[in-house]
Amino acid sequence: MPAAGPRRLHLNAFLMNAGHHDAAWRHPRTQPERVTDVRYFQHLARTAERGKLDSIFFADGLALWGKVKHNALGGFEPLTLLSALATVTERIGLIATVSTTFNEPFHTARKFASLDHLSGGRAGWNIVTSGTVDEARNFGQDEHLEHSLRYERAREFVEVATKLWDSWEDDAVLLDRVRGVYADTGKVQPIDHRGEHFAVQGPLNVQRSPQGYPLLVQAGSSEDGKEFAAQYAEAVFTAQQTLADGQAFYKDVKNRLARYGRSEDGLKILPGICPVIGSTEAEARALEQELTDLQVPEYGLAQLSGMLGTDLTGLPLDGPLPALPEERDINGNKSRFTLVAELARRDGLTLRELIARLGGGRGHRVFAGTPEQIADQLEEWFTQGAADGFNVMPAHLPGGLEDFVDHVVPLLQARGLFRTEYTGHTLREHYGLPCPAGRLAPLVAPAGQPS
Amino acid sequence: MPAAGPRRLHLNAFLMNAGHHDAAWRHPRTQPERVTDVRYFQHLARTAERGKLDSIFFADGLALWGKVKHNALGGFEPLTLLSALATVTERIGLIATVSTTFNEPFHTARKFASLDHLSGGRAGWNIVTSGTVDEARNFGQDEHLEHSLRYERAREFVEVATKLWDSWEDDAVLLDRVRGVYADTGKVQPIDHRGEHFAVQGPLNVQRSPQGYPLLVQAGSSEDGKEFAAQYAEAVFTAQQTLADGQAFYKDVKNRLARYGRSEDGLKILPGICPVIGSTEAEARALEQELTDLQVPEYGLAQLSGMLGTDLTGLPLDGPLPALPEERDINGNKSRFTLVAELARRDGLTLRELIARLGGGRGHRVFAGTPEQIADQLEEWFTQGAADGFNVMPAHLPGGLEDFVDHVVPLLQARGLFRTEYTGHTLREHYGLPCPAGRLAPLVAPAGQPS
Repeated sequence: MPAAGPRRLHLNAFLMNAGHHDAAWRHPRTQPERVTDVRYFQHLARTAERGKLDSIFFADGLALWGKVKHNALGGFEPLTLLSALATVTERIGLIATVSTTFNEPFHTARKFASLDHLSGGRAGWNIVTSGTVDEARNFGQDEHLEHSLRYERAREFVEVATKLWDSWEDDAVLLDRVRGVYADTGKVQPIDHRGEHFAVQGPLNVQRSPQGYPLLVQAGSSEDGKEFAAQYAEAVFTAQQTLADGQAFYKDVKNRLARYGRSEDGLKILPGICPVIGSTEAEARALEQELTDLQVPEYGLAQLSGMLGTDLTGLPLDGPLPALPEERDINGNKSRFTLVAELARRDGLTLRELIARLGGGRGHRVFAGTPEQIADQLEEWFTQGAADGFNVMPAHLPGGLEDFVDHVVPLLQARGLFRTEYTGHTLREHYGLPCPAGRLAPLVAPAGQPS
Repeated sequence: MPAAGPRRLHLNAFLMNAGHHDAAWRHPRTQPERVTDVRYFQHLARTAERGKLDSIFFADGLALWGKVKHNALGGFEPLTLLSALATVTERIGLIATVSTTFNEPFHTARKFASLDHLSGGRAGWNIVTSGTVDEARNFGQDEHLEHSLRYERAREFVEVATKLWDSWEDDAVLLDRVRGVYADTGKVQPIDHRGEHFAVQGPLNVQRSPQGYPLLVQAGSSEDGKEFAAQYAEAVFTAQQTLADGQAFYKDVKNRLARYGRSEDGLKILPGICPVIGSTEAEARALEQELTDLQVPEYGLAQLSGMLGTDLTGLPLDGPLPALPEERDINGNKSRFTLVAELARRDGLTLRELIARLGGGRGHRVFAGTPEQIADQLEEWFTQGAADGFNVMPAHLPGGLEDFVDHVVPLLQARGLFRTEYTGHTLREHYGLPCPAGRLAPLVAPAGQPS
């Protein structure tokens, strides 16, 4: 554990091809021709590391959206990409999204253990349950598993994964060349899991990794999602539009921790922010407008139709939203549905206005301003009980990340809010979280060895 | 396609923790403490690349054998490891083993496409069907799928994967910033596969990669395995103990190609060889004996029990093998069973002698000698119709690979049998194989575009 000191915020760089704005790839400051060029992502990872950020993160989906007509999609798979980035970075954490709905716990536990070894303890897993029927149809299913069943499966999946990570004790490898004993097999044990969704014998075929487990991250903000986060997650990415909403979410999730015997420090809450940075406020707003002007309405409508579970094709862009379903009838991302519906209602937005508002962050907060104004916003949310840090979603890449690192981070550092150097080597150290103790440790007697 | 020239052999470095000899980890020239250290594998990959080898390769299994008590196991997962090695090498091919029995084609096709992009066209897939009940039990199955059913599933799996790789045409990405059109969605198509084992909608969510498909490699030598290789594989790894056996296998597999409309050049056959290298023959034999003396009989018996589908525990080491089952009753690696049974019978070996003989290569040919003697052996097999190249399995690592690269490769080069510089950049170019044409290409008319 790091020595106690002033409370510092945590920064994760959420990287996405040409940037988070859906029209970013059309902007002259982006390089959409490089979305399958690993050197492009090396540059992004090194830029984030230059800024001493806690981690970089890739979202993931298991289907290609028809939206590829109008956006730079179809790039790398996160675990392979982050493995490649592990060898060209030193300190920054590497968080990959992997779905519990369409994977097997043995493969997932193993790949994260492998990434954790490759990176010297910098792996993180963003646990998602996946939200679309297009994904189900790439895995032999005609319909998508129902929301609460996905979370049931996710809970058992994480249970199995942690048992597998715990199946090797830290000191299982003896490496006794003279006696010919490589491992103490009393410290490498089957898990013999038999549950509702999985039967897994174990042990894992990767030795216990530097962090024990990867950092466990979660990003769903529905009731199921918040409860899951309270039980398992160590960091939460969330979309919150206003300080009041952010404070309510923060309090809600932190309050749920006690029932799982967890302290509030054990889970870090990182609302998303899509900063649009200019050297003056006018310049920032002009950039935001420039991006809005590049939006393809057809793309925005398709995106919005997906979020709202409602086909909006052909509706007049300057008219209001049609009647929407209830959250309980949404089987995709429930919390995002409610956020978007509420945003449109509260501000009385037309479809065109709503598409513009969502263009930067798909429901995450967009803030255009000077580096000072952005630092002020982050400080306010951090000190007013809405955030332990932020999921930084640059509107355009690589420039938006470079601007953030070069102009916003130094202000946060000058205010004593953010580290000026890495103090640890692992992702858990960056987030001030302990490595889990091996589950086997207290159970297994030191098999016949003199102590 | 490369320009025609003299026939050259192909060399693949099969890397395995401390080396292929089962006692290598106990030998002072190995570094078993580094099996979870990516820099160790970087050194191995760069050594192979310094020798201008075609590729490096990692085998894989989806269970931890109890044998970890006596061998250095429990290291990296191949796809993550090779992704990490992609960024620290320039030319060498990167071949990962992935099982078709315990994976989903969408994930597998995607990860290989991602690795192919990461490496600039250097990915290869060793397609295996997995052979043990311990693996099945990590994936919710009490018993292992029957041998021929595994191959049925494998065939459909590869069909689906190739359809997914073909779901993007080479020129699907338009990147038209002015019109706001990223991809021509007429050139990115669903595959709508519905078969016996899989239903996959597609398209893949990764753009077509430099090689189109990864190099397709296969390593089973049973009847099912040979037929599968003839239909799909572009390189075959095989265990052959004698020149005559190697010639028979070579001819058998090449003869099967015509029925799939394939030419003999389209599939490269690479028998395994475990070279034990010394500057004199006596030195090489002494090293081989040294490794044999380090063997743990308990480990050898367990390994042999697995290969023979027969529990040998407690049998006298200096006695003969017990009665064995027939190949048709083996549901693991059928061809390896037959090879080992035949080896013991032919040479009248005791259990102890058989364990010693298998220690170096688990059934692959072991040859101890000087660099000249080893080069002679490789030349003989290559020119006498038994091999298009070799799967080089150093007995101990890193030294055995360094010795091969520094002392055997220069002899092969001097004889005109092996490249002195890489002439291509992709793995397919190294092996003299074409990139597959996109399957969509001839089917889709150039949608409304002036030509």
